[in-house]
Amino acid sequence: MDQPIGVIDSGVGGLTVASELMRQLPKEELIYLGDTLRCPYGPRPKEEIIQYTWEMVEFLLRKNIKILVVACNTATAFTLDQLRQELPIPVIGVIQPGARSAIKMSQNMRIGVIGTEGTIQSKAYPKALQNINSSIRVNDLACPRFVPMVESGVLSGPEAYKVVYESLKPLKDKNHIDTLILGCTHYPLLRDTIQEVMGEHVQIISSGEETAREVSTIMGYQKKLYNGDRVPHHQFYTTGRVEVFRSIANIWLDQPIDILENAKLTIN
Amino acid sequence: MDQPIGVIDSGVGGLTVASELMRQLPKEELIYLGDTLRCPYGPRPKEEIIQYTWEMVEFLLRKNIKILVVACNTATAFTLDQLRQELPIPVIGVIQPGARSAIKMSQNMRIGVIGTEGTIQSKAYPKALQNINSSIRVNDLACPRFVPMVESGVLSGPEAYKVVYESLKPLKDKNHIDTLILGCTHYPLLRDTIQEVMGEHVQIISSGEETAREVSTIMGYQKKLYNGDRVPHHQFYTTGRVEVFRSIANIWLDQPIDILENAKLTIN
Repeated sequence: MDQPIGVIDSGVGGLTVASELMRQLPKEELIYLGDTLRCPYGPRPKEEIIQYTWEMVEFLLRKNIKILVVACNTATAFTLDQLRQELPIPVIGVIQPGARSAIKMSQNMRIGVIGTEGTIQSKAYPKALQNINSSIRVNDLACPRFVPMVESGVLSGPEAYKVVYESLKPLKDKNHIDTLILGCTHYPLLRDTIQEVMGEHVQIISSGEETAREVSTIMGYQKKLYNGDRVPHHQFYTTGRVEVFRSIANIWLDQPIDILENAKLTIN
Repeated sequence: MDQPIGVIDSGVGGLTVASELMRQLPKEELIYLGDTLRCPYGPRPKEEIIQYTWEMVEFLLRKNIKILVVACNTATAFTLDQLRQELPIPVIGVIQPGARSAIKMSQNMRIGVIGTEGTIQSKAYPKALQNINSSIRVNDLACPRFVPMVESGVLSGPEAYKVVYESLKPLKDKNHIDTLILGCTHYPLLRDTIQEVMGEHVQIISSGEETAREVSTIMGYQKKLYNGDRVPHHQFYTTGRVEVFRSIANIWLDQPIDILENAKLTIN
């Protein structure tokens, strides 16, 4: 099983998932495609998100991937079921792993979820949580100011604290959640600030870590993990400008990466 | 998918896995079989462990289970591959989930494993860990005094502390593990004492919690989770004396359970 793991995202957020995949599965090769040209997906209409996602999937299928990771909460919310039905390889999204981990961690079964407006409106997390345990109380909240702030490089300090504090205030004030799901792949970069605002008693769940774990579970179960020893050669593609992607990737990932070419997606 | 989840164990230890399954998947029904008559499996020869495990599996297959959980580290070490090859339903052991969780949690990739002599001698944990990441340093240690102590009801206090301290000393002294896998389903009952002895900087991984999480992952992925709403009716069987099993189960589980009958396993 020496084929690569395919990872798609609307932009750079999925790099937090890629980073965890590289850490937890250091022998596996990744092919990552970020649709930075058309990012963000969050505010787009459903039909457009579905079309763009399929274009990314077709690009990666031509690279002979053995499993597809949809490392974008918005794309997962709108396309996962469809992709699972139609693709001949396993497809893992970021929502179920985050939900399952929260259920494992929570003691009082009051769970908070934050994400983009698209993800929160889709109600994908409450559905995933309550499908497993209908007595779970979910408090979800869109945080539209987080992604632009993270992409502009503001991850900590007084400015970040102010934005995070103001955004999370409704969640912090009136509920008694003991677990908070970061339902957007950008948010782990604000993790320390979010933890500080929410308080130490709230456990923070990062979709990225949990998704990498479930990719490992499914591939182990299906005997798709690479068996030998190798230093993997990852490939990163972007639909946008290579320089911009590289500069963000160099900050977000622990290791320098090659960005092979500017990916051209076929618009049907 | 209203069929039950089957859980087998050499005795009562797997109740820690059953308890987590009930907590994380509250709509699912369990059928648990504990081979208390022939417990413990740990010191038995490999052939006997394999034969006894197959007898338990055949008992549960007749109950129309949709997935089999091997909630015993020793049985997992010696039979998992065989069961996976030969059974038409998914089979989940306790070793891989513990290993994957440790890889997710560890920062320095120095991981400790404690278990029965059979499990430690099988090297199943080091193999599972290093198969995924060959640079992981594993320190494993058999703790033969833990199971008899737990089964006699000593879970905390000075006597438990003394036994745990003396047993874990070799692991504590010379290594720098940041994560410790409880590679025996009895050990979560000593969790607080183990944490106290190892220190707060060591993260403790319970196979039970992690296995329940992976059962949820595999069943969710394969669309085998129960969809509706119900109060599940669990069934617990033991090959030994019902009264003894019940008294331990009442202490170990959060809810009272019915033990339906004394299971007679066919000896081939």
